[in-house]
Amino acid sequence: MLLRMSTLLLKTLREEPADAEVPSHRLLLRAGFIRRAAPGGYTWLPLGKLVLDRVTAILRDEMGAVGGQEVAFPALLPREPYDVSHRWTDYGDDIFTLQDRRGNDYLLAPTHEEMFTLLVQDMTSSYRDFPLLLFQIQTKYRDEARPRGGLLRGREFLMKDAYSFSLSSDDLAAVYAEMRAAYQRSFARLGLDHTIVSAVSGAMGGSASEEFLATSEVGEDTFVGCTSCSYAANTEAVVTPTPPFVDASISLMEVHDTPETPTIASLVELANDRALGGRTDWTAADTLKNVVVTVHTPGADDEVLVIGLPGDREVDLKRLDAALAPATATMFDDFAARPDLVKGYIGPQGLKARYLADPRVAPGTAWLTGANEPGRHAINVVAGRDFTPEGTIEAALVLAGDPCPACGSGSLTMRRGIEIGHIFQLGRRYTDAFKVDVLGVDGKPVRPTMGSYGIGVSRAVAAIAEQHHDERGLLWPDEVAPADVHIVAAGKDGQVAAALKLGQELVDAGLRVLVDDRTNVSAGVKFTDAELIGIGRSVVVGRRLAEGFVEFRDRRTGERNDVAVTDIPRVIATSLG
Amino acid sequence: MLLRMSTLLLKTLREEPADAEVPSHRLLLRAGFIRRAAPGGYTWLPLGKLVLDRVTAILRDEMGAVGGQEVAFPALLPREPYDVSHRWTDYGDDIFTLQDRRGNDYLLAPTHEEMFTLLVQDMTSSYRDFPLLLFQIQTKYRDEARPRGGLLRGREFLMKDAYSFSLSSDDLAAVYAEMRAAYQRSFARLGLDHTIVSAVSGAMGGSASEEFLATSEVGEDTFVGCTSCSYAANTEAVVTPTPPFVDASISLMEVHDTPETPTIASLVELANDRALGGRTDWTAADTLKNVVVTVHTPGADDEVLVIGLPGDREVDLKRLDAALAPATATMFDDFAARPDLVKGYIGPQGLKARYLADPRVAPGTAWLTGANEPGRHAINVVAGRDFTPEGTIEAALVLAGDPCPACGSGSLTMRRGIEIGHIFQLGRRYTDAFKVDVLGVDGKPVRPTMGSYGIGVSRAVAAIAEQHHDERGLLWPDEVAPADVHIVAAGKDGQVAAALKLGQELVDAGLRVLVDDRTNVSAGVKFTDAELIGIGRSVVVGRRLAEGFVEFRDRRTGERNDVAVTDIPRVIATSLG
Repeated sequence: MLLRMSTLLLKTLREEPADAEVPSHRLLLRAGFIRRAAPGGYTWLPLGKLVLDRVTAILRDEMGAVGGQEVAFPALLPREPYDVSHRWTDYGDDIFTLQDRRGNDYLLAPTHEEMFTLLVQDMTSSYRDFPLLLFQIQTKYRDEARPRGGLLRGREFLMKDAYSFSLSSDDLAAVYAEMRAAYQRSFARLGLDHTIVSAVSGAMGGSASEEFLATSEVGEDTFVGCTSCSYAANTEAVVTPTPPFVDASISLMEVHDTPETPTIASLVELANDRALGGRTDWTAADTLKNVVVTVHTPGADDEVLVIGLPGDREVDLKRLDAALAPATATMFDDFAARPDLVKGYIGPQGLKARYLADPRVAPGTAWLTGANEPGRHAINVVAGRDFTPEGTIEAALVLAGDPCPACGSGSLTMRRGIEIGHIFQLGRRYTDAFKVDVLGVDGKPVRPTMGSYGIGVSRAVAAIAEQHHDERGLLWPDEVAPADVHIVAAGKDGQVAAALKLGQELVDAGLRVLVDDRTNVSAGVKFTDAELIGIGRSVVVGRRLAEGFVEFRDRRTGERNDVAVTDIPRVIATSLG
Repeated sequence: MLLRMSTLLLKTLREEPADAEVPSHRLLLRAGFIRRAAPGGYTWLPLGKLVLDRVTAILRDEMGAVGGQEVAFPALLPREPYDVSHRWTDYGDDIFTLQDRRGNDYLLAPTHEEMFTLLVQDMTSSYRDFPLLLFQIQTKYRDEARPRGGLLRGREFLMKDAYSFSLSSDDLAAVYAEMRAAYQRSFARLGLDHTIVSAVSGAMGGSASEEFLATSEVGEDTFVGCTSCSYAANTEAVVTPTPPFVDASISLMEVHDTPETPTIASLVELANDRALGGRTDWTAADTLKNVVVTVHTPGADDEVLVIGLPGDREVDLKRLDAALAPATATMFDDFAARPDLVKGYIGPQGLKARYLADPRVAPGTAWLTGANEPGRHAINVVAGRDFTPEGTIEAALVLAGDPCPACGSGSLTMRRGIEIGHIFQLGRRYTDAFKVDVLGVDGKPVRPTMGSYGIGVSRAVAAIAEQHHDERGLLWPDEVAPADVHIVAAGKDGQVAAALKLGQELVDAGLRVLVDDRTNVSAGVKFTDAELIGIGRSVVVGRRLAEGFVEFRDRRTGERNDVAVTDIPRVIATSLG
């Protein structure tokens, strides 16, 4: 493949594009890899399409290596299967829906679990057909409320989605492990530095759901690591260790007047000023904060829920939603309708609403909390004696320095990442919904169990750009670069012809070559563009061409060496490894 | 690539599938290449996806060879650009439209002229950027009223669409000629026997619009050829030769009572019975039939149009629509509202409606036609004397045996084809709509002119299947076959292991191999499936394996030869050429 800059559809931008907030978005626009075509929809320009195709080829290769079979479903699908799975309504505004000319309902599929399941139901009949691993690389649609970061979160995007169908949990675990390894190999080839994090709490089954996060400052996902063990989890999955048992029930509950203390800070200040309970060392962590939320459960009435957590913690709505899923929560604000909930002075004792507590609010612990009367609080309010929560809930914000739930000795650090992959043991949700049964070895029907394995393909391109750039531009890993070598013709004394001749030689040797053969721009502009486009190695055909020399540049190390033009094929082959 | 039937997602069908009317649809379903997923939407199964990818690779290769640059646009696009081009309304029910969560209008693009034009406006600025040839291979959507024939006419389908941008008509003609040749090479590689037909009448510019039709009994397009020259055209483009001038004005018009002759047949019978004008040799060709239609022009009021044509011809609504485009026509039926139009007795003389005539109704010709009174007709009604049409119109059905408009000596034959490609010189419709101007060589602005070049990729797969099958199944041309060789293990004495070993050897030699290693089906079933799947050559590993022999079968010729297993790689390499 010989690409010529003189004819390539390319216009590099010197200025930072407006509305592009993250480096990958800015650089992919500036270097002419993508253009915005719609809100959350991007056009791939020739250089971008080449990178996308390289990424796609790597994923196809790695899926094939573990026995994945490629299929391709339509994106425009009728409503019926999504009614069976309840996702037509569950997704709400997040999916694009439409009607055809006959008034029948359709959707643009956000994912294809229903179709994969129906296909397997159609195409299989007995245990001999299993296990089965199917994948597709296909355009997906999601009506994102806030498309963001260019390719990072779009409304039309490319996904590699795969589903495994197994007849036993052991078989599912085996294919899950193979896919996990295939994902690690895939991301290594894509040059993506990543962390595998638990996506569900240990309580729900440990490794059954894991996310691959490309570490990046601009990532939307916060995840935690441990200072002393290998634990990594997204914040939704972090389990709060239950503190060692203490018995504080020796002291009786006392109610005190605490006027004008609707906040934790004002309460702590008053408690210390007045030496409540004889103490002057009160901190926010000694107080019990009670947060009122409204829980929205699909197909059910809204419900008021009070969450108790130490006063030095905020409620993390993402963790709360994860804990309540499929229900969601919003902050409660109609206190006028609930005079029993005394805003700023709520305590769990005698409360008439559903009450769940942070794991740190363990039986035996004593708290300074509201007395359910305006201007009054209580001390020595002991969990298990003065109140008993219905259960615990993981809703408190995770903070750097929190103890590690895995090893117990280390503490948590916070990092950010871009979710590039997600694998999980989905189980029988969809095979149950569609009643998929096949003949088992013993002659009895058996219901397949599924694994789900996704990679955001277009997002991966952005993640690569996030991890591989510098102040001068992009810097693609070799295996995904739009070309193997970038030849710059710097001069007007036959340099262009020589550059094209050298380029063709390299193409004939099996390389992919981009030649800057433009005659209407300066060498300086060409060098700047080459650095912006970000191919790892370049050859400058310049002044010393007359002596038979060109310059070989390594974009990563910055090294520049004059090399005999006849030696270039060997030098490049060596540098490509 | 080694595909194993024991694990392949494949279920061949013995019975003819219901609702599949055409051979390609039946066979692609039966052989397990596709499955229906939605009305007009199909899932590609692993074997089908392999064929589709082969077709795609050939098209990408041939487009690259003529300098085409690949891009990829979103399918989900905002309304605005399609408002500028008026296509949002012009397309009517034929496009899928929807609204996003904010209530903004979107469409699923049926084609991308607007986006290509806007992209070129964005990315270019001067004559140095031209000519430019861009293409994409992308999913398209059209809300077909009648999806048909499986992949032949779907609502979601894969297209290769390309657009050229040139700064002069000569440059456009040059790239058009290159693309025409690239299309011929592409279809040759796809194994598609095709005819290039004129898609517009010669009067409008000859070669500026041509369709590539894969000849097929099941094709939706009727086209004509000539018995003695190379003329080929779709019926919409056929030009009716004007007959040699005759002067019939010597006889005066006479009106006769012709009771109960509302049809041409009854009129001819009466005219001969009564020897009208002294003749008893009246035929339908002597009568002038006047057909009333309603013309619907976008953005204008409906209009009544009367079309005059020889009584032995019917109006062809497809030709009529092509002649009226962008307006369309339907048969007029509200005669009660137009007492001046006397149904069954209309004549062009003194008519108060717009009147267009077939070219055979030439000045000087005399006709037997209605007298605009119930039960009366007139003879010797001479064109140019008794009536003067506003113009001519190509709306009459073309019939086999009609004179060839190109050579004049041959006559037309009728054939059917599947439209697999369409190229045409689009001109400045879209660059005008978006006011695209670039700097010309002379420093003045110049507006690019466009060429449009489309290939139905998924439809091409169906067309290949139509042209390449027999009563036993599919029979793929080598370059698009899902594998190079199909190895059948026929026996249980080590044949499966030997087949897999041979398969791996061939894979290592660079071939794509499908091995039937199933142990739960008979050799007969395997042979039947192999013929249904349609790979050109197969190797049967059977009884003579013990002696070191296998059988080599050529699916096309039916030849079968015992060959030493060690000799198979050479035999296959030879047969692949």
